[in-house]
Amino acid sequence: MFIYKRRVEFAETDAAGMAHFSVFFRYMEEAEHAAWRAAGLDIFEKHETVSWPRISAKFDFKTPLKFQDEFEVRTEMGAVTRSTIQWAHVLMRGETIIGNGTVTAVCVAKNPDGTMKSAPIPQEVISRLRSALSA
Amino acid sequence: MFIYKRRVEFAETDAAGMAHFSVFFRYMEEAEHAAWRAAGLDIFEKHETVSWPRISAKFDFKTPLKFQDEFEVRTEMGAVTRSTIQWAHVLMRGETIIGNGTVTAVCVAKNPDGTMKSAPIPQEVISRLRSALSA
Amino acid sequence: MFIYKRRVEFAETDAAGMAHFSVFFRYMEEAEHAAWRAAGLDIFEKHETVSWPRISAKFDFKTPLKFQDEFEVRTEMGAVTRSTIQWAHVLMRGETIIGNGTVTAVCVAKNPDGTMKSAPIPQEVISRLRSALSA
Amino acid sequence: MFIYKRRVEFAETDAAGMAHFSVFFRYMEEAEHAAWRAAGLDIFEKHETVSWPRISAKFDFKTPLKFQDEFEVRTEMGAVTRSTIQWAHVLMRGETIIGNGTVTAVCVAKNPDGTMKSAPIPQEVISRLRSALSA
Repeated sequence: MFIYKRRVEFAETDAAGMAHFSVFFRYMEEAEHAAWRAAGLDIFEKHETVSWPRISAKFDFKTPLKFQDEFEVRTEMGAVTRSTIQWAHVLMRGETIIGNGTVTAVCVAKNPDGTMKSAPIPQEVISRLRSALSA
Repeated sequence: MFIYKRRVEFAETDAAGMAHFSVFFRYMEEAEHAAWRAAGLDIFEKHETVSWPRISAKFDFKTPLKFQDEFEVRTEMGAVTRSTIQWAHVLMRGETIIGNGTVTAVCVAKNPDGTMKSAPIPQEVISRLRSALSA
Repeated sequence: MFIYKRRVEFAETDAAGMAHFSVFFRYMEEAEHAAWRAAGLDIFEKHETVSWPRISAKFDFKTPLKFQDEFEVRTEMGAVTRSTIQWAHVLMRGETIIGNGTVTAVCVAKNPDGTMKSAPIPQEVISRLRSALSA
Repeated sequence: MFIYKRRVEFAETDAAGMAHFSVFFRYMEEAEHAAWRAAGLDIFEKHETVSWPRISAKFDFKTPLKFQDEFEVRTEMGAVTRSTIQWAHVLMRGETIIGNGTVTAVCVAKNPDGTMKSAPIPQEVISRLRSALSA
C-alpha cells in the first residue's frame, strides 16, 4: 500500500461547501503518479511513444471533505492484465473513510499516424510498482 | 433523453493532448444541471435545507476528446429510489461514442447542526425531470 | 468587439458560494479562443511549430458571479506588437459589470530542441481577428 | 517571506505540455492560505460573517512549468490598507524564475441580507501574518 497525503485547497471546494466530487478523481491520479515516482518511475517520460490513458474510473463517496481538511489516499494495485493496471484507492481523514475508488489505465503504444494501440506492460514497471507499494 | 452540447476548452486538456479524464465528471454534472433547468427546476435553489451530494460516479472511456472537439452528452434517468437518482450519460462526438458513465445523487435534508440525512425526493421533482427528459 | 456567452457551472464555484477567482482566467481564454474561431482561425492548429503562450494576465473583480449566473465576455484586441497580442475582456451579467481583465499572448516559434522564441505574428492572423472583432 | 512548496500535477497541464496559465492563480492562493495557517490563522473560520474576496489578481509568466516540476512560491505581504492586503508571490524552480504575481484581497463583513461591505482588518491578523512571514 502506498500512502499519499494531501489537503483540500479552496479552489477544489464548491458552493455546497465541500470538495467537488470531480476532484476526487484528481486525488486518485495524484496518488498513482506519486506511487510511480516512489517506484523510481516516470509515467510520462516516454509519452511520445508510450502512454497510459484511463479506460475506467469510479468513486463511491461516503463522507464529505471540506476546505483545509487533511486526508490520505491509500493506494494499491488491483487486477493487472497484459496491458492494464487497475488502481484501487481509499481516502481517509484520520480514521474516517471518505470514500474509495478505482482507476484502470491501459498501456498504449502510439503509432506514427497518431493512433494508439494497447501494448504489453514492461515487466520492470510491474515489479518496481509492486516493490514500492509493498514497502 | 436530454441532450447537452459542449466543446472541449483548452484548460480542460492535459499534456497528453486530450481532455483530462476528470473533466468528464464535470461534463456529466453540467448535463444533469442543464436537465434540471430544462425541467423548470433549480437543483441549488433550496441548498440551505436540501442538497444533492453525489454518492457514486463512474465513467468508461472509449475514445479521447481533443481541444475544441464538439460533443454532446445524452442524459437519461436510470434507477430512481426514495432518495436517490442515478443519472446515465453517453458522450458522443458525431457518431463516435466517446464514453458513458453514471452519477448517483442522493437527496438530503440538512439538520440545523450541519449534519445531513437522506430525504424522500419530492414527487414533483421526479415528474418534472421525467417530462423534460422525454420531451 | 466579440461577445462570448457563458453560464457559471457548479464545479467553478467555491465554498464562499461564488465563481472561484481563478476561473475568470479560463473565461477570458475561452472567449479569446472563440474569437479565433469566429475569425476562421484555429489557435492550436500549428501547435507543433507555432504556439501562443501567455506572458501576462490580470483581472479586476467588481461583482461576484454565482452558480448558474449567465454572463457575457466582451472581448477586444488591445495593443498589438510584432509578436504579442493583448486581449482586453469585460465580463457583464446583464447591465452589471462583473470585472475586467487583460491577457497578453506571445507568438512563438518552436525550435527542434524544444526551446521557443518569439516570432512575428502573421499579418493574416491580425487582419482576420480584426475583421471578426469589428463584425 | 513565506515559502510554499508544490509539484505540478498532471491535471494542471494542458495540451501545450505546460501548466495551464490559470493554475498559477491557484498556486498563489494555496501559498497565501498556507501562510495564514503558518500564522495560526484560518482564513475561512468566520466565513459566515467575514470573508476575503479577491479584488485584483495578476501574474507575469517568464518560464513554463511542466508536469512533475517541483517549484516553490515565495510569498510576501505588499501594501496593506485598512481593508485590503496585497500578496506578492514569486515562483521559482530551483534558481529559475517561473514568474511573479500579486493578489489583492479585501476583508468584508457580510450583512444579514447577503450583501458585503469592506471592513477593517483585525490588527491581530496583520501582526500574526507579519510574524509568520518574517520567521
